[in-house]
Amino acid sequence: MRPIITAYDWVPDFARGQVRDLRLRWALEEVGQPYDVLYLQQGEQKQPPHRDRQPFGQVPTYEAGDLMLFESGAIVLHIAQTQGDALLPADDDARARAIEWMFAALNTLEPPIMDRANATLFERDEPWSLPRLPAIDRRIDERLRELAGRLGRRQWLDGDRFSAGDLMMVAVLRIVGGTPLLDAHPTLTEYVARGEARPAFARALADQLAGFTGAPPPAFAAWVAAQGETG
Amino acid sequence: MRPIITAYDWVPDFARGQVRDLRLRWALEEVGQPYDVLYLQQGEQKQPPHRDRQPFGQVPTYEAGDLMLFESGAIVLHIAQTQGDALLPADDDARARAIEWMFAALNTLEPPIMDRANATLFERDEPWSLPRLPAIDRRIDERLRELAGRLGRRQWLDGDRFSAGDLMMVAVLRIVGGTPLLDAHPTLTEYVARGEARPAFARALADQLAGFTGAPPPAFAAWVAAQGETG
Ligand SMILES: N[C@@H](CCC(=O)N[C@@H](CS)C(=O)NCC(=O)O)C(=O)O
Ligand SMILES: N[C@@H](CCC(=O)N[C@@H](CS)C(=O)NCC(=O)O)C(=O)O
Repeated sequence: MRPIITAYDWVPDFARGQVRDLRLRWALEEVGQPYDVLYLQQGEQKQPPHRDRQPFGQVPTYEAGDLMLFESGAIVLHIAQTQGDALLPADDDARARAIEWMFAALNTLEPPIMDRANATLFERDEPWSLPRLPAIDRRIDERLRELAGRLGRRQWLDGDRFSAGDLMMVAVLRIVGGTPLLDAHPTLTEYVARGEARPAFARALADQLAGFTGAPPPAFAAWVAAQGETG
Repeated sequence: MRPIITAYDWVPDFARGQVRDLRLRWALEEVGQPYDVLYLQQGEQKQPPHRDRQPFGQVPTYEAGDLMLFESGAIVLHIAQTQGDALLPADDDARARAIEWMFAALNTLEPPIMDRANATLFERDEPWSLPRLPAIDRRIDERLRELAGRLGRRQWLDGDRFSAGDLMMVAVLRIVGGTPLLDAHPTLTEYVARGEARPAFARALADQLAGFTGAPPPAFAAWVAAQGETG
């Protein structure tokens, strides 16, 4: 049974290669699990049929048999925990540490990084956004410096083995990829480059980008209608 | 073997009952696992011996045998996954959904809520903080409305059974407890009240508050010295 994920059929340029279904695609490629994608038009994520799957009206979602999940972190963890050991080591303690890095990515690094995205993209025209930027950047820089200090000369966060923790951390750091913020930390630009060099990542990225046709590829709405769902 | 967590021996009034070791204490009480606490003085969290355990210089940390963990989300999940089924249901799909709510708490609800804490506490005197507050509050309110919509008349997020997802969500919602933001959603104030009414929560809260003596209870520094650790 192929799992089904949701994604967008179009996003603005700045978001291409960043939408969070990329994390699921990457994880599924790492474990070698084929999947299907249902594409939403912008706005559809807030309508009942999709909101029934994602209470906050966002992508991605994940469906496999009776299981319906949202939250990219939870979905990547579910894939990692249920599909072999490509994304989580067998040793219990090492597993717990890999999961720790997933939470660090999503609860310690991503919040200030998304704060910056809000200030520079979504709230760019608000009078308070630009003056706040230096303070946001200081906070991000502190977190990046601390992360780089911990990573040191290791290849991956917990040593030589890539894990779901690295997948999530690389996905989060890429949001500031190519900016002076990340470039100030060569330890981290090299770490992100190692992540992006993985064949599974390259396939995931190419597939996300290929979905932005604006035309209906497998459309979420048509699929919902065919299932006879209401909403 | 009793796990050891780190906490602060003093925090300002506004943080009492909110410091994130509360989440660990609560989880440990729910599963019936006795634990020890090592207390840090303010500032010690940024020094090498503790930063070796927590790269971002924060509490809490968790130590059990050879396993050393940080990130309250990862620690609560580890406790939930390894200690019985008090915090995670036995059914695989229900387990995945409980974990999904943990990520929703930490990656969807907590970021805008902590943004507000930054604006009203840590960056209160910055000229941009006050003008930004209405936008922050709108974003929080949208998330709370969506969460209340999903919770509906359910007792807990996934039905009648309390889980680690509820523990984390209640812990996050409590940050805006007693403010008009949360009070605007009776579904959620009642949900938080149900969480806080649990005997395990009451014990955890009482124990955190009892630690704020400012005097050295089991002190982290003395303990590190006794272990002969360097840093
Ligand atoms: N915490 C969620 C965040 C999901 C999220 O931010 N989704 C974005 C795309 S990357 C979205 O759908 N935004 C559109 C919207 O909020 O309307 C997760 O990790 O899954
Ligand atoms: N994402 C971390 C956040 C931990 C955190 O914010 N800790 C606060 C106390 S609640 C802290 O130690 N702050 C002091 C500091 O940053 O110096 C977790 O969930 O464990």
